[in-house]
Amino acid sequence: MIAARIDFQTEPARYRHWRIATEGAIAELILDVDPDGGFFPGTELKLNSYDLGVDIELADAVQRLRFEHPEVRCVVLRSGKPGVFSAGANIRMLAQASHAHKVNFCKFTNETRLAIEDAGDHSRQFYIAAVSGACAGGGYELAISAGWVMLIDDRRSTVALPETPLLGVLAGTGGLTRLTDKRRVRRDRADLFCLLEEGVRGKRAVDWRLVDEVVPPSRWETAVAARAAEFAARSDRPTDEAGIRLPPLTRHFSTDGVAYEHVRIALDRPARRAFLTITGPARLPADLAGIVAEGAPFWPLAVARELDDALLHLRFNEPGLGLLVLKTTGDPSAVLAADALLDAHGGHWLVREIRLLLRRVLKRLDLTSRSLIALIEPGSCFAGTLTEIAWAADRAVMFTGSRTGNNSGPATIGLSPLNFGTYPMGNGLTRLQTRFLGEPESETRARARCGTLIESEEAAELGLVTASYDEIDWDDEVRLMLEERASFSPDALTAMEANLRFAGPETMETRIFGRLSAWQNWLFQRPGAAGESGALKRYGSGIKPEFDPDRV
Amino acid sequence: MIAARIDFQTEPARYRHWRIATEGAIAELILDVDPDGGFFPGTELKLNSYDLGVDIELADAVQRLRFEHPEVRCVVLRSGKPGVFSAGANIRMLAQASHAHKVNFCKFTNETRLAIEDAGDHSRQFYIAAVSGACAGGGYELAISAGWVMLIDDRRSTVALPETPLLGVLAGTGGLTRLTDKRRVRRDRADLFCLLEEGVRGKRAVDWRLVDEVVPPSRWETAVAARAAEFAARSDRPTDEAGIRLPPLTRHFSTDGVAYEHVRIALDRPARRAFLTITGPARLPADLAGIVAEGAPFWPLAVARELDDALLHLRFNEPGLGLLVLKTTGDPSAVLAADALLDAHGGHWLVREIRLLLRRVLKRLDLTSRSLIALIEPGSCFAGTLTEIAWAADRAVMFTGSRTGNNSGPATIGLSPLNFGTYPMGNGLTRLQTRFLGEPESETRARARCGTLIESEEAAELGLVTASYDEIDWDDEVRLMLEERASFSPDALTAMEANLRFAGPETMETRIFGRLSAWQNWLFQRPGAAGESGALKRYGSGIKPEFDPDRV
Repeated sequence: MIAARIDFQTEPARYRHWRIATEGAIAELILDVDPDGGFFPGTELKLNSYDLGVDIELADAVQRLRFEHPEVRCVVLRSGKPGVFSAGANIRMLAQASHAHKVNFCKFTNETRLAIEDAGDHSRQFYIAAVSGACAGGGYELAISAGWVMLIDDRRSTVALPETPLLGVLAGTGGLTRLTDKRRVRRDRADLFCLLEEGVRGKRAVDWRLVDEVVPPSRWETAVAARAAEFAARSDRPTDEAGIRLPPLTRHFSTDGVAYEHVRIALDRPARRAFLTITGPARLPADLAGIVAEGAPFWPLAVARELDDALLHLRFNEPGLGLLVLKTTGDPSAVLAADALLDAHGGHWLVREIRLLLRRVLKRLDLTSRSLIALIEPGSCFAGTLTEIAWAADRAVMFTGSRTGNNSGPATIGLSPLNFGTYPMGNGLTRLQTRFLGEPESETRARARCGTLIESEEAAELGLVTASYDEIDWDDEVRLMLEERASFSPDALTAMEANLRFAGPETMETRIFGRLSAWQNWLFQRPGAAGESGALKRYGSGIKPEFDPDRV
Repeated sequence: MIAARIDFQTEPARYRHWRIATEGAIAELILDVDPDGGFFPGTELKLNSYDLGVDIELADAVQRLRFEHPEVRCVVLRSGKPGVFSAGANIRMLAQASHAHKVNFCKFTNETRLAIEDAGDHSRQFYIAAVSGACAGGGYELAISAGWVMLIDDRRSTVALPETPLLGVLAGTGGLTRLTDKRRVRRDRADLFCLLEEGVRGKRAVDWRLVDEVVPPSRWETAVAARAAEFAARSDRPTDEAGIRLPPLTRHFSTDGVAYEHVRIALDRPARRAFLTITGPARLPADLAGIVAEGAPFWPLAVARELDDALLHLRFNEPGLGLLVLKTTGDPSAVLAADALLDAHGGHWLVREIRLLLRRVLKRLDLTSRSLIALIEPGSCFAGTLTEIAWAADRAVMFTGSRTGNNSGPATIGLSPLNFGTYPMGNGLTRLQTRFLGEPESETRARARCGTLIESEEAAELGLVTASYDEIDWDDEVRLMLEERASFSPDALTAMEANLRFAGPETMETRIFGRLSAWQNWLFQRPGAAGESGALKRYGSGIKPEFDPDRV
């Protein structure tokens, strides 16, 4: 395990592994891993292999390009090292990481690959992978997160997914799923490809749909530039607007928790739980010009960035806290007012980015393998965007009536137009649609109450909360619920929640976290992969790994 | 591990745990487990809990009701024990079973639950679960495989899925998936339900969609009978036709393999592989009357039953043989002629049953966690229905031209109308549609060649096979391919194949085997569930299990 706190905050000036070079509408995002910059002591990051530290910088770069560079319409992913694009996730790191770190590392890298696709699909900032040199495993998985993959035809550059033959694990950063679902590689060719250590190059790579084009070395740079210009021309991003700088978050860490400006984490280690409280907006700009002028401090953007960082902090640094209690505090009308701004100006590039960021952060919450319980109490502001948090939770319980000594009045929840399409889950449905799969009429009934604040009895009757308790029962019921949940098997809860949270259709995205990740996590437990004599530990030693010969 | 061979062949006269009682259009399928009839020595099957032996009988009963009882239109699942419907899978059995046995047991039980649904959906033989008494875990999972679930409202009878709180595992026999996808239980209610050891009863069970109706004891038998009559009235099954008896399969087991009449398994233990060869039809009836007169020996029906038994035998009794080489021998025109019979008489109840059985057996092949390689050689008869086997395989390689000393002429593959809709995979698509997800025009091109026999070069050009080799290369290429495959991690291949085989849409069925089973298999590896101090081992001991407190 890692003793030091893993921090997801960074900025380009501190990058050790990536460079961003922008020129007009085109940016280059260049992977040039510092071999000595490994996250674990003693892991040398050879051949542009990556670990969590490299991926934290990538996630930061992808986010900044969207907010800080509205003018960038196409991003070219490439390597800064000759002869190699990327060798994928670093094996030594995987061999020494704990099971929990491996699982969380894969989840985070998957989220970042999806953010790259999200940038192209929704921010119209298109990614191209310009692959020159060996591109293997996680390197190829990164490349195919781009919307277009170019491979230089120099007889040495190849693409490969050699995880199964070399390491006894899967191409688990979306690789297998993107092969079949995104690139629609014929399944027997996918089987050949995934067992071919040396990979595939040239025309065959195109014929098998592993890459979109191969280009001879003589035309390589011209072709990459032309393709980038072509993609850039398809974008609707503005050419004449300034970006919004994303400054470091204001955070204060203490033994009791973390305080951001709008988000507060309170740790209760003996009870193995954390309370996460979001404060509603204290002030809001009047119009679009005000939003642009405010920039990063604009409440919806600030709260999204803080919540994102808080979730990642809890995932990686507080694995023992299996229960996350979600609360809000503030004026629900102010949250609805913030939503009204986001709703009115959704066509503006910055507002679009903020809505998309909120959507990604809410998905990060869906995928956080902690039991999530939302408490809707007097003084809380579960309205509009923040109500999504209550529906992302495994349960949302609501206080009925007023609380003695609290003059906020009864607890309410509020709906805004943003609850009806702006924040789809990974399954492509909104949280309300997913909730009401068996009774779609309930979504229609809820929609009719948009813009109003709903008290407990009606919220329960509309099916918007799990249960409601009045003052007499609240403290006991909540205490018992939290204590009971903390007593169950953390592993079984993780697996159960991963099944119950994603009802309805599966998409490439949910398949990555459902089918692919679940099988990868299984492998990460198997002696043949993760054991002392397994393939990860024995990689490069010259000694053959020991496999259990039985199929299960 | 179990030393004795596990046998999937049985018949009602030998049942120890189930009774079939038919009366006209209604059958009762009564679970009355013999506590002393446990599959593992020393496991007492209390409270109608089940193990593999109980489920083998259930699978047999479900199959026989379809073939032997065309007049049965509704099957009522009930318990023969007072006060208990079923306590689910036997915990002692799960605690002592090997990882491979647990995984294979769950897969088989899942396949049987799906066969129950298939009987209702496609054979129009509808299942009702009449739940009286405690119905927990696998017992409730069995009940909700029925199309209609009735619960007696006697204040004692409950439904429950207590796996997570009691055992640190999942309701993995489809339970969690059927809650969200089939019964569309609201996800926070599903969360409450799955953590409520004591279960849910009465009106709340209906309100939460856990059951379809509750009935007071005074009206119970009348209501069950009325509901069964109502379902029976909706069926299109014949009232005046005799069933087809399914006699025991003719099998010969030897140290080298198993010989059925049309299927042969040859074991090659040193190389960790098995060859499975299907022989095409030697003779066929001329018309529908001939099919009915022939009954069980009719080649498509006989071959389906034999292949099914062979696959189950390999799964449970030969876990060390990770590679299954699929071959056929015979006249491809005769296979196409058999398909023509199945195609012409698809509306007849028996032909419908045969087609549906073939479909289920092919799905069983898709789900068999062995590497599947089809060899299409001179003298083989990969045509129509049998060609599905080549597409179910991870790879299908084909011999080009004639073989010296073999006067069968060049290898061919043939397509029949049955390849274009009769045998969908679990994902709802045909194997050809799944294969050609990225190039649907290739399916159209293949369809144009229906009814003809296609030689190697054209088959490769049409994308119907993975690779083709002529006589000079065949032996070396095939030998190297098989040897190489056997050298890879069996676990990693299992997981890889589970991802690559099921491209395209997910259905409830694929989600059960993908998301739910993969997570369950992960749990079955975790110390908190399966370890010496885990919940399965400590169940009923009075000593609390030890859980890893960290979330992964």
